[in-house]
Amino acid sequence: MRLRNKKWASSWLDEHDELVITQDRATGLQGNWQSIFSNEAPIQVEIGTGKGQFIIGMAKKYPEINFIGMEIQESAVAVAARKAFEDEHELPNLKFIFGDGAGVETYFSNGEISKIYLNFSDPWPKTRHETRRLTYRSFLSGYQTVLPSGGELAFKTDNRGLFEYSLYSFANFGVKFVAQGISLDLHADEEKMQDNVATEYEEKFSTAGFPIYQFIGQFE
Amino acid sequence: MRLRNKKWASSWLDEHDELVITQDRATGLQGNWQSIFSNEAPIQVEIGTGKGQFIIGMAKKYPEINFIGMEIQESAVAVAARKAFEDEHELPNLKFIFGDGAGVETYFSNGEISKIYLNFSDPWPKTRHETRRLTYRSFLSGYQTVLPSGGELAFKTDNRGLFEYSLYSFANFGVKFVAQGISLDLHADEEKMQDNVATEYEEKFSTAGFPIYQFIGQFE
Ligand SMILES: C[S@@+](CC[C@H](N)C(=O)[O-])C[C@H]1O[C@@H](n2cnc3c(N)ncnc32)[C@H](O)[C@@H]1O
Ligand SMILES: C[S@@+](CC[C@H](N)C(=O)[O-])C[C@H]1O[C@@H](n2cnc3c(N)ncnc32)[C@H](O)[C@@H]1O
Repeated sequence: MRLRNKKWASSWLDEHDELVITQDRATGLQGNWQSIFSNEAPIQVEIGTGKGQFIIGMAKKYPEINFIGMEIQESAVAVAARKAFEDEHELPNLKFIFGDGAGVETYFSNGEISKIYLNFSDPWPKTRHETRRLTYRSFLSGYQTVLPSGGELAFKTDNRGLFEYSLYSFANFGVKFVAQGISLDLHADEEKMQDNVATEYEEKFSTAGFPIYQFIGQFE
Repeated sequence: MRLRNKKWASSWLDEHDELVITQDRATGLQGNWQSIFSNEAPIQVEIGTGKGQFIIGMAKKYPEINFIGMEIQESAVAVAARKAFEDEHELPNLKFIFGDGAGVETYFSNGEISKIYLNFSDPWPKTRHETRRLTYRSFLSGYQTVLPSGGELAFKTDNRGLFEYSLYSFANFGVKFVAQGISLDLHADEEKMQDNVATEYEEKFSTAGFPIYQFIGQFE
């Protein structure tokens, strides 16, 4: 997804650098994120947060957990953060990182994150772009580094090819299946839907009639 | 699937005991199946062969491979075998076992089978019937025993719940993912469809618009 450029984004981000942390500053915070949140609650991260509907929804739903939305596109992270700031009066348990998920192990120390979410990640369908997929093994290796042993990865997508590829990539990397950890039509599963927080893409594609695939796995 | 009882089945099977081998006789043939086929070609087995469309199609398509359709229902195996006998003049590379897949390691010796197919296996959706599913771990253990190391298991179904369960069961048992070994809509994949031999159930459900799920895995 490419958002149209937002002229206001860059200066807005400068003015809200406590809410949206740049990649450089994130690197300096490695190992010290609990100080940013002023508490010792677990931290969960969404990589590729887009316009933020999911991570804002999670932060409201689970005030006892700290959330970080990570996003590489300036306009998107600005839209997401402004929504959190204006509509939700800056939730105390929500921050954003304007940065690349490929650097995850430079922003966080080993085990500093308790769960990672990937939602409707860009599919990069061409084989020559495999290394850009957020479920490519180099990314998985980064996630493993920042998660504790037993830490979870939760992945949702409507994209069949990406999901098939990712199942293969997870299995090959040794990400363990959690019981009930796979759904091939999430929105048809009433029990799972009770806890589901939908993303922008999820609403769009499930409304259009596409099945939503979900995988929840665990790193060793 | 329960077929209506066929009155002719029992005596027809008695009269064609070279084509359809009973469970008892199969046990006596353990380790000697190549003698039944009078050659040393690899042997592939479908468990739950139903009315036989798949295994007959495979035997015609791959004359250099030996096939066995295993089926627990007398009427079904009789329908399948009679079709092979009458329509196809008894293909030399096709036999049937009238028997229970749970006994697979009593019919074959270690590594005697090169590939196992499960197609549209009965889903047994209730948790208390989990042990009857052909992808339950006790079945997987039997398949592992009769396959050589690296031997393949190929599984197709339209049943979402059974497929989700089976992916979990395969992963937990340590069945390895083969590259390109998963498809969440087989009939939408032109390349894979070139080699696909459809089963009765597959035709019915794909025509009705349901996605067909496929998994191909490898035992250690
Ligand atoms: C298709 S959108 C999905 C947005 C949102 N998660 C949703 O489900 O509605 C994917 C997002 O991931 C972002 N993204 C892609 N690669 C990324 C990376 N390496 N690091 C951080 N974000 C990335 C894109 O900029 C885009 O905003
Ligand atoms: C739903 S039908 C599918 C038939 C066929 N494979 C198809 O795809 O059209 C499942 C078949 O598996 C057989 N079956 C179930 N459990 C079995 C077992 N333990 N051993 C052998 N066959 C079994 C049933 O009798 C039934 O004929």
